[in-house]
Amino acid sequence: MTAKSDTPAVKALLFDIFGTVVDWRGSLIADLTQWSVQRGVSGDWTALVDAWRQAYPPSMNEVRTNPERGFIILDTLHRQSLERLVAEFGIQGLSDDDLHYMTMGWRRLKPWPDVVAGLTRLKRDYILSPLSNGNVALLTNLAKSAGLPFDLIIGGDISGHYKPDPETYLGAAKLLCLRPDEVMLVAAHNNDLAAAQALGLKTGFVPRVTEYGPLQVRDFEPDRAWDIVARDFGDLAARLGC
Amino acid sequence: MTAKSDTPAVKALLFDIFGTVVDWRGSLIADLTQWSVQRGVSGDWTALVDAWRQAYPPSMNEVRTNPERGFIILDTLHRQSLERLVAEFGIQGLSDDDLHYMTMGWRRLKPWPDVVAGLTRLKRDYILSPLSNGNVALLTNLAKSAGLPFDLIIGGDISGHYKPDPETYLGAAKLLCLRPDEVMLVAAHNNDLAAAQALGLKTGFVPRVTEYGPLQVRDFEPDRAWDIVARDFGDLAARLGC
Repeated sequence: MTAKSDTPAVKALLFDIFGTVVDWRGSLIADLTQWSVQRGVSGDWTALVDAWRQAYPPSMNEVRTNPERGFIILDTLHRQSLERLVAEFGIQGLSDDDLHYMTMGWRRLKPWPDVVAGLTRLKRDYILSPLSNGNVALLTNLAKSAGLPFDLIIGGDISGHYKPDPETYLGAAKLLCLRPDEVMLVAAHNNDLAAAQALGLKTGFVPRVTEYGPLQVRDFEPDRAWDIVARDFGDLAARLGC
Repeated sequence: MTAKSDTPAVKALLFDIFGTVVDWRGSLIADLTQWSVQRGVSGDWTALVDAWRQAYPPSMNEVRTNPERGFIILDTLHRQSLERLVAEFGIQGLSDDDLHYMTMGWRRLKPWPDVVAGLTRLKRDYILSPLSNGNVALLTNLAKSAGLPFDLIIGGDISGHYKPDPETYLGAAKLLCLRPDEVMLVAAHNNDLAAAQALGLKTGFVPRVTEYGPLQVRDFEPDRAWDIVARDFGDLAARLGC
């Protein structure tokens, strides 16, 4: 019996992006370091990137808990956090174009080495989409630059909600005209999978133990017996019979 | 000076689907004819397909002009129209599964012969998406079955509106974080292009003079000097410098 026959109903695989599909930390540190040399500005880019990522959950929670203010896309949250952080870090001389270039760095992130080959195999048998807090424009440009062969793009601005709001997981299933158990979320984060599982989605865990570099404190292992636990996207494809 | 330099700002090409990208009439007639032989039911499938297509604009207008009833996706409108038509045509013995199979025929439509090669060339330089009244699930399955290399899928259920409502054209530009004049609608229908142009989008016309078969009464020629008029998708790619 193959792994595929254990999950006969799954028709679409939805992927968490930041950390699961792309190495945001390594990509941004490399991108900003290279750019800063050409641009002639100096800063502790590793510390800035780590602080930028730490600003991300609270900035989304601000949106999630104040729906009356309207939905704000992740590109805008990234820019707002960056403006605060460059001031805090005392990085001088940045123009509006510089801040835009840096913010668009999230659209230039690089995938983990196993991703493109794994997705290419999976695409033959499954509908593939991000299910990400990134906005559609960010994710579309990221997928295009990284060569990620998604069939469609589901970002936070599709449902007007950020994960783990139920509207994100259930909205994606509804958009695809599928039942929640016909959809599998693939993520490197146990809390994302727990939210999806509670709503009836299938779950696939792929560890990314270097995502946060020396700051990584969780998600070294699966917390639960998720429907699939795979070493990487190649192993995920094999376990799904692709 | 190439055509590309005439339209330096365009970053995304949005495609009307039914008629422009896929031959809905020829595909549905062939699909239903083949299925009916295997299924052992008889009917005038050409007449049914033509009537089914004629039911489409009024069914959308019913949604457009009654927003208080909520948005209804095209899969559902197709099913509702079909149920009425099989009764009118006196087609007997169809089960719920049969009606479902027939309705899903809109997800199995075949592209015009120039489409896949043209889109593949265009994809290198442009973001490609449908901008269709089809719902996302319909379009996603259609793109997958037909091998259409879109970067993302924008259907009517993204904006909750049907063309020519402005929310469809402007919502697509907003979703991509682009100005309207950075987006080009490509369509075989002059009225679709006129609505897009009035909102500031760029326009590309590709004639599909056999779309309606012997019932075709319009769109043999461009009504205006659209930004681009191309013979087919290969010519469109050439004129956009791809």
